[in-house]
Amino acid sequence: MAKKYFPEVKSKIKYEGPQSDNPLAFKYYNAKKKVGGKTMEQHLKFAVSYWHTFKGTGADPFGGGVYDRPWDHADDAVGVAEQTLDAAFEFITKLGCKYYCFHDRDISPEMSSVKETNKVFSHITDLAKERQKATGVKLLWGTANLFSHPRYANGAATNPDPAVYAHAASQIKNALDATIKLGGESYVFWGGREGYIALQNTDMQLERENLAGMMHMAIKYARSKGFKGKFLIEPKPKEPSTHQYDFDAATAIGYLREFGLMDDFALNIETNHATLATHSFEHELAVASDAGMLGSLDANRGDQTVGWDTDQFPTNIYDAVWAMYYVLKQKGLKHGGLNFDAKVRRNSFDSVDLFYAHIGGMDSFAKGLIIADKLHKDKVFSGNLKERYKGYRSGVGKKIRDGKTTLAELERYAIKKGAPAAISGRQENLENILNQYIFES
Amino acid sequence: MAKKYFPEVKSKIKYEGPQSDNPLAFKYYNAKKKVGGKTMEQHLKFAVSYWHTFKGTGADPFGGGVYDRPWDHADDAVGVAEQTLDAAFEFITKLGCKYYCFHDRDISPEMSSVKETNKVFSHITDLAKERQKATGVKLLWGTANLFSHPRYANGAATNPDPAVYAHAASQIKNALDATIKLGGESYVFWGGREGYIALQNTDMQLERENLAGMMHMAIKYARSKGFKGKFLIEPKPKEPSTHQYDFDAATAIGYLREFGLMDDFALNIETNHATLATHSFEHELAVASDAGMLGSLDANRGDQTVGWDTDQFPTNIYDAVWAMYYVLKQKGLKHGGLNFDAKVRRNSFDSVDLFYAHIGGMDSFAKGLIIADKLHKDKVFSGNLKERYKGYRSGVGKKIRDGKTTLAELERYAIKKGAPAAISGRQENLENILNQYIFES
Amino acid sequence: MAKKYFPEVKSKIKYEGPQSDNPLAFKYYNAKKKVGGKTMEQHLKFAVSYWHTFKGTGADPFGGGVYDRPWDHADDAVGVAEQTLDAAFEFITKLGCKYYCFHDRDISPEMSSVKETNKVFSHITDLAKERQKATGVKLLWGTANLFSHPRYANGAATNPDPAVYAHAASQIKNALDATIKLGGESYVFWGGREGYIALQNTDMQLERENLAGMMHMAIKYARSKGFKGKFLIEPKPKEPSTHQYDFDAATAIGYLREFGLMDDFALNIETNHATLATHSFEHELAVASDAGMLGSLDANRGDQTVGWDTDQFPTNIYDAVWAMYYVLKQKGLKHGGLNFDAKVRRNSFDSVDLFYAHIGGMDSFAKGLIIADKLHKDKVFSGNLKERYKGYRSGVGKKIRDGKTTLAELERYAIKKGAPAAISGRQENLENILNQYIFES
Amino acid sequence: MAKKYFPEVKSKIKYEGPQSDNPLAFKYYNAKKKVGGKTMEQHLKFAVSYWHTFKGTGADPFGGGVYDRPWDHADDAVGVAEQTLDAAFEFITKLGCKYYCFHDRDISPEMSSVKETNKVFSHITDLAKERQKATGVKLLWGTANLFSHPRYANGAATNPDPAVYAHAASQIKNALDATIKLGGESYVFWGGREGYIALQNTDMQLERENLAGMMHMAIKYARSKGFKGKFLIEPKPKEPSTHQYDFDAATAIGYLREFGLMDDFALNIETNHATLATHSFEHELAVASDAGMLGSLDANRGDQTVGWDTDQFPTNIYDAVWAMYYVLKQKGLKHGGLNFDAKVRRNSFDSVDLFYAHIGGMDSFAKGLIIADKLHKDKVFSGNLKERYKGYRSGVGKKIRDGKTTLAELERYAIKKGAPAAISGRQENLENILNQYIFES
Repeated sequence: MAKKYFPEVKSKIKYEGPQSDNPLAFKYYNAKKKVGGKTMEQHLKFAVSYWHTFKGTGADPFGGGVYDRPWDHADDAVGVAEQTLDAAFEFITKLGCKYYCFHDRDISPEMSSVKETNKVFSHITDLAKERQKATGVKLLWGTANLFSHPRYANGAATNPDPAVYAHAASQIKNALDATIKLGGESYVFWGGREGYIALQNTDMQLERENLAGMMHMAIKYARSKGFKGKFLIEPKPKEPSTHQYDFDAATAIGYLREFGLMDDFALNIETNHATLATHSFEHELAVASDAGMLGSLDANRGDQTVGWDTDQFPTNIYDAVWAMYYVLKQKGLKHGGLNFDAKVRRNSFDSVDLFYAHIGGMDSFAKGLIIADKLHKDKVFSGNLKERYKGYRSGVGKKIRDGKTTLAELERYAIKKGAPAAISGRQENLENILNQYIFES
Repeated sequence: MAKKYFPEVKSKIKYEGPQSDNPLAFKYYNAKKKVGGKTMEQHLKFAVSYWHTFKGTGADPFGGGVYDRPWDHADDAVGVAEQTLDAAFEFITKLGCKYYCFHDRDISPEMSSVKETNKVFSHITDLAKERQKATGVKLLWGTANLFSHPRYANGAATNPDPAVYAHAASQIKNALDATIKLGGESYVFWGGREGYIALQNTDMQLERENLAGMMHMAIKYARSKGFKGKFLIEPKPKEPSTHQYDFDAATAIGYLREFGLMDDFALNIETNHATLATHSFEHELAVASDAGMLGSLDANRGDQTVGWDTDQFPTNIYDAVWAMYYVLKQKGLKHGGLNFDAKVRRNSFDSVDLFYAHIGGMDSFAKGLIIADKLHKDKVFSGNLKERYKGYRSGVGKKIRDGKTTLAELERYAIKKGAPAAISGRQENLENILNQYIFES
Repeated sequence: MAKKYFPEVKSKIKYEGPQSDNPLAFKYYNAKKKVGGKTMEQHLKFAVSYWHTFKGTGADPFGGGVYDRPWDHADDAVGVAEQTLDAAFEFITKLGCKYYCFHDRDISPEMSSVKETNKVFSHITDLAKERQKATGVKLLWGTANLFSHPRYANGAATNPDPAVYAHAASQIKNALDATIKLGGESYVFWGGREGYIALQNTDMQLERENLAGMMHMAIKYARSKGFKGKFLIEPKPKEPSTHQYDFDAATAIGYLREFGLMDDFALNIETNHATLATHSFEHELAVASDAGMLGSLDANRGDQTVGWDTDQFPTNIYDAVWAMYYVLKQKGLKHGGLNFDAKVRRNSFDSVDLFYAHIGGMDSFAKGLIIADKLHKDKVFSGNLKERYKGYRSGVGKKIRDGKTTLAELERYAIKKGAPAAISGRQENLENILNQYIFES
Repeated sequence: MAKKYFPEVKSKIKYEGPQSDNPLAFKYYNAKKKVGGKTMEQHLKFAVSYWHTFKGTGADPFGGGVYDRPWDHADDAVGVAEQTLDAAFEFITKLGCKYYCFHDRDISPEMSSVKETNKVFSHITDLAKERQKATGVKLLWGTANLFSHPRYANGAATNPDPAVYAHAASQIKNALDATIKLGGESYVFWGGREGYIALQNTDMQLERENLAGMMHMAIKYARSKGFKGKFLIEPKPKEPSTHQYDFDAATAIGYLREFGLMDDFALNIETNHATLATHSFEHELAVASDAGMLGSLDANRGDQTVGWDTDQFPTNIYDAVWAMYYVLKQKGLKHGGLNFDAKVRRNSFDSVDLFYAHIGGMDSFAKGLIIADKLHKDKVFSGNLKERYKGYRSGVGKKIRDGKTTLAELERYAIKKGAPAAISGRQENLENILNQYIFES
């Protein structure tokens, strides 16, 4: 096993169980262990995100990069990209993760012209294909970075200038080609700048329509090239934009429905984007899943005391339980998985911190899976719902469900029936049971 | 003019102009003054809200009612309702306002049975009809209070118990009858409890469907009774619910589209609900107006330093300018107006404070109208947009708009065109111009 | 054992262990079990709060009371107070809790005059003394409700009217008498209306000084009556006030220092007040504890998706662990304990929900204690800190600590020493370890 | 007049009055116009901030720099610094601003060693001194950038490593020397990383003490060099830190009092920092001013719909009025002024946007001054306060103020006096009057 870039991790991270005090071992994630008929690794299609893990610098708005990564020391941009690819596959295989995700510009640099950029991108993704074959690692999804380059300061598919729109189209086309070449299961749209800085100089409706136009072109192109996967939209309310058009799951679904995009798209739900929209993670999961649109997860965690995207590694057990509960409830994520859209803290300078972080995320979701599976099997929540809403399965309740009654009929029923009973929602007891499942699973 | 309940206001509030220091006079609202071809009172269909102004008590979560209103001193609930009606019409006519709005249970009390409640409601609304005829005051919209009664603790049209749903249907039916009887221009759905307290014991999808079913029954019933107005949905993200299903304008529009309700419904946008959803007021107005769904306004103001609905009277000139700008841009609010869903502060104990508050709100919007009209005529913002997006009116931009291009063609264009120019959005200059219009209009 | 008011709970709640599925049993709280040399009940001085548990109605800003408590059905206010007292002691003893807390007006009603109010208060607290003696239940702390009565709409000790200030003084005097009579360990000041609604009509400095004057008078009075306990200030940023003067722990400590109140006061830190101030609970605990001012806890939980005080029962294990960690670190809460300033959800209508809620809170903190004790003993965090800051125990670091160096000397050191090393903070690994302690303790 | 870097502005920006439509002219700021006995430029000591205006790149967390400034094109870092200085003085003099502010590392680069860095800094500040002399422009305050360099990832004066602390000491020493050399009126401490990323690996008390130690050393050093100005602390709650130790004005004042720093320090209050702390700007101004600690202003504006520091130029008239009101009330800012800690939006690419932005800020505060002066002279707010609190100027109220009463005496007074009257706070009327002053001044 390669030891070039991560010599401090001498071999593949192993499962050592809950009693281990080895920080470089899994305590809960046991890839081949069966939970509810499938192995953990079948349930938990974890992906390493290329941008944070290999290209993150630790920069923030008040200071520049602070990490010194050995794979960044080549002579030119292409050399850096090649070395990074080596480092990435060394990391991913040592971690024992099965998937990764990238933006075009993480994996391959912007060059001096569109043609040159595309050529290098093709070269690097050829190398990535070799590495995938050699290691068995797969691409969960690909995407294009349409927000970092200065040309996108006013948006990409929502730019007031068609010339920028055209550049975005070019990037999407090539990123789709790469995703198809590498067998990516999905293709993601995250529109960090597809929104506005200021409403007063923005034609919001034109911009929203143009974005939908781009999505339709992407579908047409990808399907013509044989892409069978899903397109994913990733809601986020704001940052860097003041307002992002796919604010949250409900807004994104409304958008997809408005523009006839429901069949080809699903949602990629991110924990921290949920909390920035003042929703809970489970709320966003439920909205997406109820609409049949929960496609994939960006598993991370925000800090509720601050107002920006912190993209911390997911270690909150409540989040992990709810995520896995909704996934189990809908019988899995067909084309999706759990991408760690997460970065180590700025002062976690060492490469080994990247291992600690991913191990913690994987262990948290493994533990979450075990607990959620038990909650699911024991029908803790579903049984309670069945009882609580039973009135809608017969009588006047059923007529309401079937759209076969009227205000007048219901008024007669209300008069006849008199005052309804006050039926407790039993929230506190459900919370106690959840804690008991967490502590005892 | 009646002087029974508001003896401190001896006659109708007059326009005295900007130099007046009479707190009981308008400085900017001059009903018959023409602005852009219509009188101020035609542009500004102000409505007094019955609940806050006549039935507000000043109670908050940490203390009970603090106002001592003379119209609350009758012997029984029906007497109080009759006296309140007298007080209301005295107030509205002294203020010189043309409209009011009510919930069924503000204007008429809950009695011991549905039948009795309906009977009293019919009596009180008969009296209201007489008062309307006598004074020329009109009903902007009616609605049913489906949140205050204990039976609605778990929601009304989203209640787990069909018996509660039936009670809600009864109230809506009678509130529709009353709205039609009184010539109300619209009928509002605000679902303060149509959401959840806790997701874990909630079947969100069933509840959302049941709510849509209720809306369809309401449309069917009202149209059968000859109602020609609009139904209005009033987005709010939360409070009292942890999550309300019509979170914001985008969510509400998505909901209406999902359930086939777009034709009969429009949105009633409230300033403070916008800010609770972390949007600006103008954002919500733009979202609704862009979709052709801006029906009416709840004109008030929140406090950005707190996290709940403060429903203060609207005095922020920026909000008033943007509101009137969007209204002018769409050529008015056909069935809607500007309802003051606002209450005096808890320590504004005196009845005269109600006059100060409404005068301030009306003056702010009158000033806002004057400024917005000038901005609109001078094409300050629309001219800038026309210039900024001109690339989409010809060439490749037009092909993008018309859906007649492809990723491949756009890539060729990007290659040929080279790096796009960096074109300033000129936000700072637009902000300066806006301030100058505010100070000099 | 009395069965009058809570017949569904036939006997005292027992510890049945983690495997029990009896919702009316403790799974983790085992009063006599020893943890780190003391019993659980010595560590965890849980208190039932009179206001939420016995006098809460379920009212919220959009609807009135929804609970029908049998102890509220007496003929007059004094009878209700007597019955409530019976219910309270039945509940507390069945729960097996050792402490309770009250405001004067929870336990005894406002009557038609100050004298009459005081007389009834004296009578009810005499009865409480008997009940305490009979059951062994103790008073953790007493306080005066200086926010619910209309007279306090503009504040109590910060009211613009000295007449209101005098009423507040009277209530504090009598509440102190009662606290002393009942052996209360502390006396709390929570100033829900000691702040402002609007800054523009407020003399903030005068109000802050007057509040301090009241605190000094209270100390003087209480000490003259032999009170040996602590006065507690309970920081909260806002609600019902727009701004409350003791915004958070740092502000409250600054206030106490400014006005010479540090010796007699400590802080009562509430979870939900911390989150409303955009702090984490552990932050507020650390600020108070570092200053030697952590006196007591109001153990509850907020909802991060809403902007108001939800006062939910504490079930988040991370909060419970950190709370107990800081308590253990400072070797306990001398005069304080863990008051459940928490209420069941509005739709938890049944009296048995009160038991579920308290059991969940007590179990969460018992589990939190077990985990925190292990973290503390194993020096997981303290050991890491010792290592991380070791540079300040010798050499130039020690001179910095001792105030024995200068800018010039430090510059010479910087020049000589050269670039400092980048030392990882290891946050991710610490988070993983914390989770392992939570799952395996 | 130099035209090298800003050729689009051919001469000094002139006052052309409210009717001008020249975007490169002042509409309200008329430097020599007298307001309340002093000229506008005496009241409004505006300062241009070096970092945003000359060294801002437009980078944000999702994209790099986007501005192409001609002064950044020299061959080496020192050359860039020299050209930037030329550009800065060209801009400041064309704008007609009298002051500027800098951090050491804005004006002069980090070199390969401390000695070399200091040498270049000395050279550049010598040049700055010449430019100041030539133009009459003055230094409002200087400061050290203790947050951008990677060595400060864990804080500067709060770093766990004394070696980093020593580097910070060196920078402060040199920045003080420069400030003194350039006649700076104050010296600022903004501690963007003087707080924590994660509490769990932080010794908060040690760090707070070390920071105070640094401040004491800075005072000692500066006073020994003859510095007569103020030290300013600039509160901010968070960002980039998760928590910053000088969270808000109250916390900062508490800190200064705790560590004996009240005499040498005052506060520099920033609008956007106030709103990030969930305070209004006027609240922070009032807290600081009431304590005699309002030293200077960072005039900018945040966006209430997002959770990070947007540092927009100040154009909200309400903020400007309140700021100037508090400044007038305390008879000016002795050592301080109004620094535009503000940056143009990322898509305001052009140098001319920098002029628009500053003109807008200066005009807004000039207009705010005119309005505030009128409010102050007419005693709109002070007269209302005098009336509202009159009860404390005699009788029992005076005894309360003088600390000459007791709980018992006050209780006797309350009994005798009976129920207090409900006196309206008249907030709505005050809001109306404020608007009228804004529109008519």
